[in-house]
Amino acid sequence: MTTPPVGIIMGSQSDWPTMREAASLLEELGIGYETRIVSAHRTPDRLWEYGRTAADRGLQVIIAGAGGAAHLPGMMASKTRVPVIGVPIQTKALSGIDSLYSILQMPRGYPVATMAIGAAGAANAALMAAGILALQDPALARRLDEWRAALSASIPEEPSND
Amino acid sequence: MTTPPVGIIMGSQSDWPTMREAASLLEELGIGYETRIVSAHRTPDRLWEYGRTAADRGLQVIIAGAGGAAHLPGMMASKTRVPVIGVPIQTKALSGIDSLYSILQMPRGYPVATMAIGAAGAANAALMAAGILALQDPALARRLDEWRAALSASIPEEPSND
Amino acid sequence: MTTPPVGIIMGSQSDWPTMREAASLLEELGIGYETRIVSAHRTPDRLWEYGRTAADRGLQVIIAGAGGAAHLPGMMASKTRVPVIGVPIQTKALSGIDSLYSILQMPRGYPVATMAIGAAGAANAALMAAGILALQDPALARRLDEWRAALSASIPEEPSND
Amino acid sequence: MTTPPVGIIMGSQSDWPTMREAASLLEELGIGYETRIVSAHRTPDRLWEYGRTAADRGLQVIIAGAGGAAHLPGMMASKTRVPVIGVPIQTKALSGIDSLYSILQMPRGYPVATMAIGAAGAANAALMAAGILALQDPALARRLDEWRAALSASIPEEPSND
Amino acid sequence: MTTPPVGIIMGSQSDWPTMREAASLLEELGIGYETRIVSAHRTPDRLWEYGRTAADRGLQVIIAGAGGAAHLPGMMASKTRVPVIGVPIQTKALSGIDSLYSILQMPRGYPVATMAIGAAGAANAALMAAGILALQDPALARRLDEWRAALSASIPEEPSND
Amino acid sequence: MTTPPVGIIMGSQSDWPTMREAASLLEELGIGYETRIVSAHRTPDRLWEYGRTAADRGLQVIIAGAGGAAHLPGMMASKTRVPVIGVPIQTKALSGIDSLYSILQMPRGYPVATMAIGAAGAANAALMAAGILALQDPALARRLDEWRAALSASIPEEPSND
Amino acid sequence: MTTPPVGIIMGSQSDWPTMREAASLLEELGIGYETRIVSAHRTPDRLWEYGRTAADRGLQVIIAGAGGAAHLPGMMASKTRVPVIGVPIQTKALSGIDSLYSILQMPRGYPVATMAIGAAGAANAALMAAGILALQDPALARRLDEWRAALSASIPEEPSND
Amino acid sequence: MTTPPVGIIMGSQSDWPTMREAASLLEELGIGYETRIVSAHRTPDRLWEYGRTAADRGLQVIIAGAGGAAHLPGMMASKTRVPVIGVPIQTKALSGIDSLYSILQMPRGYPVATMAIGAAGAANAALMAAGILALQDPALARRLDEWRAALSASIPEEPSND
Repeated sequence: MTTPPVGIIMGSQSDWPTMREAASLLEELGIGYETRIVSAHRTPDRLWEYGRTAADRGLQVIIAGAGGAAHLPGMMASKTRVPVIGVPIQTKALSGIDSLYSILQMPRGYPVATMAIGAAGAANAALMAAGILALQDPALARRLDEWRAALSASIPEEPSND
Repeated sequence: MTTPPVGIIMGSQSDWPTMREAASLLEELGIGYETRIVSAHRTPDRLWEYGRTAADRGLQVIIAGAGGAAHLPGMMASKTRVPVIGVPIQTKALSGIDSLYSILQMPRGYPVATMAIGAAGAANAALMAAGILALQDPALARRLDEWRAALSASIPEEPSND
Repeated sequence: MTTPPVGIIMGSQSDWPTMREAASLLEELGIGYETRIVSAHRTPDRLWEYGRTAADRGLQVIIAGAGGAAHLPGMMASKTRVPVIGVPIQTKALSGIDSLYSILQMPRGYPVATMAIGAAGAANAALMAAGILALQDPALARRLDEWRAALSASIPEEPSND
Repeated sequence: MTTPPVGIIMGSQSDWPTMREAASLLEELGIGYETRIVSAHRTPDRLWEYGRTAADRGLQVIIAGAGGAAHLPGMMASKTRVPVIGVPIQTKALSGIDSLYSILQMPRGYPVATMAIGAAGAANAALMAAGILALQDPALARRLDEWRAALSASIPEEPSND
Repeated sequence: MTTPPVGIIMGSQSDWPTMREAASLLEELGIGYETRIVSAHRTPDRLWEYGRTAADRGLQVIIAGAGGAAHLPGMMASKTRVPVIGVPIQTKALSGIDSLYSILQMPRGYPVATMAIGAAGAANAALMAAGILALQDPALARRLDEWRAALSASIPEEPSND
Repeated sequence: MTTPPVGIIMGSQSDWPTMREAASLLEELGIGYETRIVSAHRTPDRLWEYGRTAADRGLQVIIAGAGGAAHLPGMMASKTRVPVIGVPIQTKALSGIDSLYSILQMPRGYPVATMAIGAAGAANAALMAAGILALQDPALARRLDEWRAALSASIPEEPSND
Repeated sequence: MTTPPVGIIMGSQSDWPTMREAASLLEELGIGYETRIVSAHRTPDRLWEYGRTAADRGLQVIIAGAGGAAHLPGMMASKTRVPVIGVPIQTKALSGIDSLYSILQMPRGYPVATMAIGAAGAANAALMAAGILALQDPALARRLDEWRAALSASIPEEPSND
Repeated sequence: MTTPPVGIIMGSQSDWPTMREAASLLEELGIGYETRIVSAHRTPDRLWEYGRTAADRGLQVIIAGAGGAAHLPGMMASKTRVPVIGVPIQTKALSGIDSLYSILQMPRGYPVATMAIGAAGAANAALMAAGILALQDPALARRLDEWRAALSASIPEEPSND
């Protein structure tokens, strides 16, 4: 079984309603992906193994969603040179600001490409992955341009009361 | 004159002390880059032109630093499918939280890969660019692995009082 | 077709429930307006064109509502000298603080007259527009004075339990 | 003695180092102004009188700077229909977020055109005033366009290490 | 008609559901009060008059609730030496932090005794008023002691699942 | 030895540079006071004893300054019905927001009259104490009116560049 | 009656829905506990007595939940050397940030082991207590290891749409 | 070589000026410790090994300091049942709130006993460790009681101007 270009990982099942925005946008753009639950705290060895083998398996981009003390994206970035895109999940008490700071404020050496908090961020993670993959895939570049053009074209001139 | 793979752009001369961290790390990794001051507000047409031609000129990654109402990274992401990495510059009154929110909270459709606030974020923007370029450049992948290994090896076992 | 004095623009259809507060208050004061969806990211060329022609078309005030990484008001202020009033739309994760900072923290050179977050801010944008237009329109000044007097007169002496 | 078009008022002498940015930019643009210390709390009757007579004296725009529990801009907006532009002064403990919220979050009926915290906000208050006055003063409109063009033209292409 | 010792004032009818906590606690303690809607912005002259006459009318404590750019408590403190207790009303976008900062951060010279945000703060405003009045009223001091003792006595030893 | 009307207490010697603003303003107004270091955590029994005897000793107002997890004002309010005025000391990491929330957010039953963060708050605590004491002391009421009038009279008409 | 190793205390009955997470996790791990309502402000003498006798009664760990100006955990830490674990209860206006700062920011000398805001923090308080008790109880150490292993094993490989 | 009861670990050499507060307080209390630099991102395998062997080596408490996206304490808590005490290091842009949220907001299953931001938190981490170890060490319990008594006794009655 071949490895798809994108791995979508998340800290828990409860992140899936947010992260499926990434999955469905990748499908829309015709980009292959796999989904895994990889909890930094509950399954650290799974994290280690996923990170250790990511480059050799041929993963091109890892999209990682996590909430609260969100260590998954940063720890993954520590284990592999494959680009990691982080999605801060909105949380109950702190609205995702805890997730955001835990993902964003990485020290020199281990970047995580942080997206907006919540569902828009998950969708944008897929588009960022598409932009990266399009650098080596002219057909995908064209599809991405078309997706963007369609989004622009969908905006009406005036607001509607309906 | 050929286009280098990375464009480092920033909103003003005052962002350069932060953004030069990105430049010097790219140099360390042997990655070509150009630097431009592109102010979203003061030179919007320059922004337009830079974004409009980025893909055709062959730019692979754009690193954009900006502070306050930091519109440069997001507006650039609106103008080109080339991946944009955003660096929030620390600000006087709001410590860069204004820069961060202006860069991070992009709507569905136009991702900006946001880095940590300030100099660490600028350095990490270069490393994120390297990780993206390494997907198509095995020699760079090797150099990046070595850089990461050297960083790890540099950490002493114990803290020192000196 | 003549240009009305006020342009109400917004980043997306979803901003309209907030921005219609501005529209209905302009109507109450007998001030003409047009409404447009102008997305900084999805329709940047529409933004450019709107800004480029605003002064020549005779627009006197632009009211711009946007949420999240809210670049529309500031980018419009970069494109035209016509006064821009910004309305931060309340957002899900960050309650509109992201919108506020993106609109408010403009650099020297490009002011945006920022209003309160949400519906009260939209209504006040219309009143600020009225105050500006009243400088050259004594009849409007009188209507604005009357509107303000009526608001004051509507306040009961004591709170009621009904 | 004739009334100038712009009144710059501030809550205390300590606000002047910030507010003089507004004054010097008005001078640069050839716009007349007066400066007054009007403390909402220490000189409420002065505030009342200034607001009560503003329109009749012929003031066109009021720029009001204040810090902490910054009541001056909003109280002035309550006393006169003349447009009020508010400048939040940076504060010691809360960095001006207290000033900002006290100025920005005005209820329906009494808008204050809020600018960025600190010196950039003071400068922009002058430019917003200029934009408002330019609606009735073609020569000023031209000067403002030239000022903006000069600002744009002053931006170098590349950052400099000097 | 004699003036009661406590005046409960608020910026709008919508503050009453919060402020009635103060009223009902004053009743419980047998302290007379009056209630007034005094909007700093919509009825500034009412504020002026209320403050100007407060001491002469014999008011001993003023409890003032307000939300958003909450200028009522501080402006009242500017107009009278009668102690002013401020209650920050919870708000929609900023949860009452805007109300809090607008009430709390008064400059040297004009204190407002700020209470917790929302209903607990309104109840505590009444208790603070009671503590102040009890300094000259031994019977009230006894009632307040009893109220406090009853509150303590009402706490069960263990939590209950019912 | 007679008890003065005001007790100034603070959590540690390091709070004194802030709290001495309260002391010197009380002196200016001719109000007697005592100063004590009462640490909620390091000397809880001192706190207990101070609170237990406060009313009987004849204290009329307690001014309590504390920083960080600032429990002193609220615990004192729990031990005595004598009105407690709280002063949040500015802190290093959190600028006094930790102090503020720990003092302000008291539950129903135990109000603390919270002042602004830092030195202005300490000065205002003294003025609030003066306002409370003036209710029973016409001479003090006159001195307080004069102090306020002098403050108002000290404000110059225009800002000065000197 | 023997004292169990863990005391769960809380400021009010309304904290119990959160704190029962701690109780049920202790039961799951076979650790004895008692529950008490100990309000720092309403029952300070109960707090004093509980703290004074804690070590002698043989309590090994105290879990203390509180909200708002949450003084219970820190005051308990002041009264006993028995380790205190603090649980910040989520609050209405400030989401538990007030509770957090009041518990966390203890001065040198009196640590409180602060957990996450809300129910996850209450559960983790029980696990922290278990980790402390396990240092002297090999059987508990084994049960804790098994609980942790079971948690890890419960994580599915992939997210599910059901 | 025997393992001391306490391990002090930190993410980088730059954390040592803060963390040495923990070390010196442990020395004062006569508690053995080791110090290690264990970077979650730069030396993840060292973290793994340290956590994997901690219980077997006989470590009783781990004190972990980290700043920014501070993953060390939480990842260590994921790898061992030995109690982990976390110290949020103050940071430049976000004052340690990033460190705090990354350490505090752990999910159910993996508690970190979070201390105050900065040096006071580091000292308190040592005292929390002492309180835990004292549960099995009556001599240490006595020393801790004496240390606490000495701290209490050191507080002067009145603030001094010297």
